[in-house]
Amino acid sequence: MRYPNAIKKVVNKTITSHKNRGMSLEEALNKTNLYYLENGMAVIYKKPTPIKVLETKYKEGNKQLITKAIYEKKSTTDYNGVYKGKYLDFEAKETENKKYFSFTNIKKHQVTHMTNVIKQKGIAFVIISFSKLDKTYLLESSIIIEMINKNKKNISISELEENGYEIKESYNPRLDYLRIIDHLYFKEEL
Amino acid sequence: MRYPNAIKKVVNKTITSHKNRGMSLEEALNKTNLYYLENGMAVIYKKPTPIKVLETKYKEGNKQLITKAIYEKKSTTDYNGVYKGKYLDFEAKETENKKYFSFTNIKKHQVTHMTNVIKQKGIAFVIISFSKLDKTYLLESSIIIEMINKNKKNISISELEENGYEIKESYNPRLDYLRIIDHLYFKEEL
Repeated sequence: MRYPNAIKKVVNKTITSHKNRGMSLEEALNKTNLYYLENGMAVIYKKPTPIKVLETKYKEGNKQLITKAIYEKKSTTDYNGVYKGKYLDFEAKETENKKYFSFTNIKKHQVTHMTNVIKQKGIAFVIISFSKLDKTYLLESSIIIEMINKNKKNISISELEENGYEIKESYNPRLDYLRIIDHLYFKEEL
Repeated sequence: MRYPNAIKKVVNKTITSHKNRGMSLEEALNKTNLYYLENGMAVIYKKPTPIKVLETKYKEGNKQLITKAIYEKKSTTDYNGVYKGKYLDFEAKETENKKYFSFTNIKKHQVTHMTNVIKQKGIAFVIISFSKLDKTYLLESSIIIEMINKNKKNISISELEENGYEIKESYNPRLDYLRIIDHLYFKEEL
């Protein structure tokens, strides 16, 4: 499956080489979700990038070609789906910073969305990948929201070690984040 | 909020006047979901239309303008979200037919998706609106899947009356489908 987002990145900037086997966080998560889907473990998709279509024309076979469009602001998060009946919702962020993750990467309306999901008893979290360090963490949104509300500007690696969970990379599933969700919400041993 | 889909419809064909106060099913559902969101009842969104971006250029202020793109096939359904902790997923379909709803409107990969959601204990259903009759029904996906697997080609209004639930239209929320979900999954009186 190819995502408009991936194409956007190609157009946007030179692709940075990532330590984690040349795979971006998005690619690793899409592969992981495909593994979950194919093994009947969960149904989780990346939401399509919202695009506002301004002009179209018809090409052969009566198919529509979009000739003018713009990217719209995301009003929610990157991924959502179902796991063991529960609603699961998360944002995935990659940073080249080697010390901390800056909260400027989490938009205000995303904090609102995560707050709404938690109120509805959904499972909300953020996956943060440090591409230069080859380390990826899962942090529950409740903790991020609390930090942002206290005007904290970022979260350091050591704070992530303390408050979050490292997602160890493996061959397949690439980033087995559901193992951590099991531990946090379904009382299973890590 | 404006959706690429709505714009697509404008370009695509003359807008048909619907009996239900000039409002399409999509508009009615978006208003309903906004009501649920603003009243802290549920967090349910229409998924953005998947679009494959082929060419972009930069305009003033370093913003990207999409100059070539195509609509991609939907791999899942129209709406999803969280209600009382549960994952909720549905497809919304409008027909001008006055007698039945044809299953050709439900694509094979959507049947697969609905089957996957049910396996994960998510709540899956279809909302079918008969625009000429001003009648809207909720039908659980399990029933539709069973009918399609038995090679049934359509479902008549009387079969919908028997197997589904009519969603009565009101001012706000416009189409209160969660009332039926309460009855079906949370044991509340209709």
